[in-house]
Amino acid sequence: MKSPAHRDVLIDALRDAGNARRSDVIAVEEPLEIRLMRDGLPEADENGGTGRSISVTMRTPGHDAELAVGFLHGEGLLRAPRDVISTGHCGPTGNILRVTVRADIPLDLARLTRNFYSTSSCGVCGKASIEAVSATAGDRRITSPLIVREPVLRRLPDALRASQAGFAETGGMHAVGIFTPEGELISSREDVGRHNAMDKLVGAALLAGDLPWSQRVVLLSGRASFELLQKAMMAGAPVVAAIGAPSTLAVELAESAGITLVAFLRPGGCNVYTHPWRVTRASQDA
Amino acid sequence: MKSPAHRDVLIDALRDAGNARRSDVIAVEEPLEIRLMRDGLPEADENGGTGRSISVTMRTPGHDAELAVGFLHGEGLLRAPRDVISTGHCGPTGNILRVTVRADIPLDLARLTRNFYSTSSCGVCGKASIEAVSATAGDRRITSPLIVREPVLRRLPDALRASQAGFAETGGMHAVGIFTPEGELISSREDVGRHNAMDKLVGAALLAGDLPWSQRVVLLSGRASFELLQKAMMAGAPVVAAIGAPSTLAVELAESAGITLVAFLRPGGCNVYTHPWRVTRASQDA
Repeated sequence: MKSPAHRDVLIDALRDAGNARRSDVIAVEEPLEIRLMRDGLPEADENGGTGRSISVTMRTPGHDAELAVGFLHGEGLLRAPRDVISTGHCGPTGNILRVTVRADIPLDLARLTRNFYSTSSCGVCGKASIEAVSATAGDRRITSPLIVREPVLRRLPDALRASQAGFAETGGMHAVGIFTPEGELISSREDVGRHNAMDKLVGAALLAGDLPWSQRVVLLSGRASFELLQKAMMAGAPVVAAIGAPSTLAVELAESAGITLVAFLRPGGCNVYTHPWRVTRASQDA
Repeated sequence: MKSPAHRDVLIDALRDAGNARRSDVIAVEEPLEIRLMRDGLPEADENGGTGRSISVTMRTPGHDAELAVGFLHGEGLLRAPRDVISTGHCGPTGNILRVTVRADIPLDLARLTRNFYSTSSCGVCGKASIEAVSATAGDRRITSPLIVREPVLRRLPDALRASQAGFAETGGMHAVGIFTPEGELISSREDVGRHNAMDKLVGAALLAGDLPWSQRVVLLSGRASFELLQKAMMAGAPVVAAIGAPSTLAVELAESAGITLVAFLRPGGCNVYTHPWRVTRASQDA
């Protein structure tokens, strides 16, 4: 039996040896609407008791509560397990998730329901985005003294791939994993959207009381974007490694937030873009 | 000299042969805010003459007007070159683009400024999303009789890659290309966001009067998501091919819209997920 993250479809496989009509497993993509309520405050709800709509994301079903909690953590709204009163799907489709939070959590709904990059009234630029993030994070700077050995880093992609049931089946899922500095996989999540995989992982950690990630290495199966670095920063991750390429804004945020950003992590080596002191060669600490 | 789509940074390259501090080229990621004005109607502007903010996307700078026009086309707002009165950057950052459209174009700003997937009041599900798209597209069904030979399809990824200056330099750019049914590359665009690459290509075609794409094959460098299929449908593309995997919702939209969806396009073959009659084997038409 497949999980709801995958679905079988009939395809025409065209190969040199000839055509075949056969079954293929593909990654499920469905929208998830996140609705927010404050505990005991019906006035927070404009739609008749089902919560205020905050965001809609195209995601792979599964770990929806973690996704929603992780998303709200990345927006600076939730900080600890006690901030979450309850979570639950509503409606018949399984594509609406309500999060009820503590009544005394301050909500800036105008900000939450817009893309936060657009809050700068003086114009939008990379610097403004980083300032907007700083405002959310309270000028967070990650000071964890965690050190990771470069040979350990190189082993992480294989470990993450081995945990990716969905990718093996569908070839179409992004993954994010968290590891100990010794390279042990703690947890991983998959999704058609890489930001969702990160939200699911952060949400699970928040609900389990496992934030911040000051002793964790984060691995991204794809590229390192600004959005992923922003979420990692909110989770307190000192080292973020990506198998793919970084963007300029990801590098700039990592630099300013004190995150060690590693990218192009391959069997033959890797590139360290910021704060390289956290990555040591084997020979230096042998 | 680099284009503003790329930037040099200093990195620590850790390799078996040893460390090296050297320069590396990375893809620029910056936010773009799209603002909308109606020609001669200052009342459309709530911010003092700079237009109504519609959307903020993280994109690679370059072809910004095409991106904005393509985005608005995908939302069902623009249909022909005459719908666009002017486009231009405003502000000092180069990250705000204003599009002035014909005064008689109907604007549903409430819909435009929200994610359109969330407009269904009866709940969010894949079916509701497809219905929302149908509402935008006016029940569009692509009936182009275009046929493409499978050996032609197999050559497209190499042709697209050869056009990707950014990917070769940065390893971090998505691309979308349009081709004739004979496999000739017409145009391609790159971006850190694949939906932006598609918007840039659609916007360029709209401004040049080259829509709909009824005689074009669209190639995606990565995966085929719902959002990309939706944009391709709005552009009237009968064949969409992806080097990566498709999602369920992409397959469902292609099926209902009459689009031939090809994915996992590799040297050894490809998979056809919907409307396979548009793809012929060499032996069948030799």
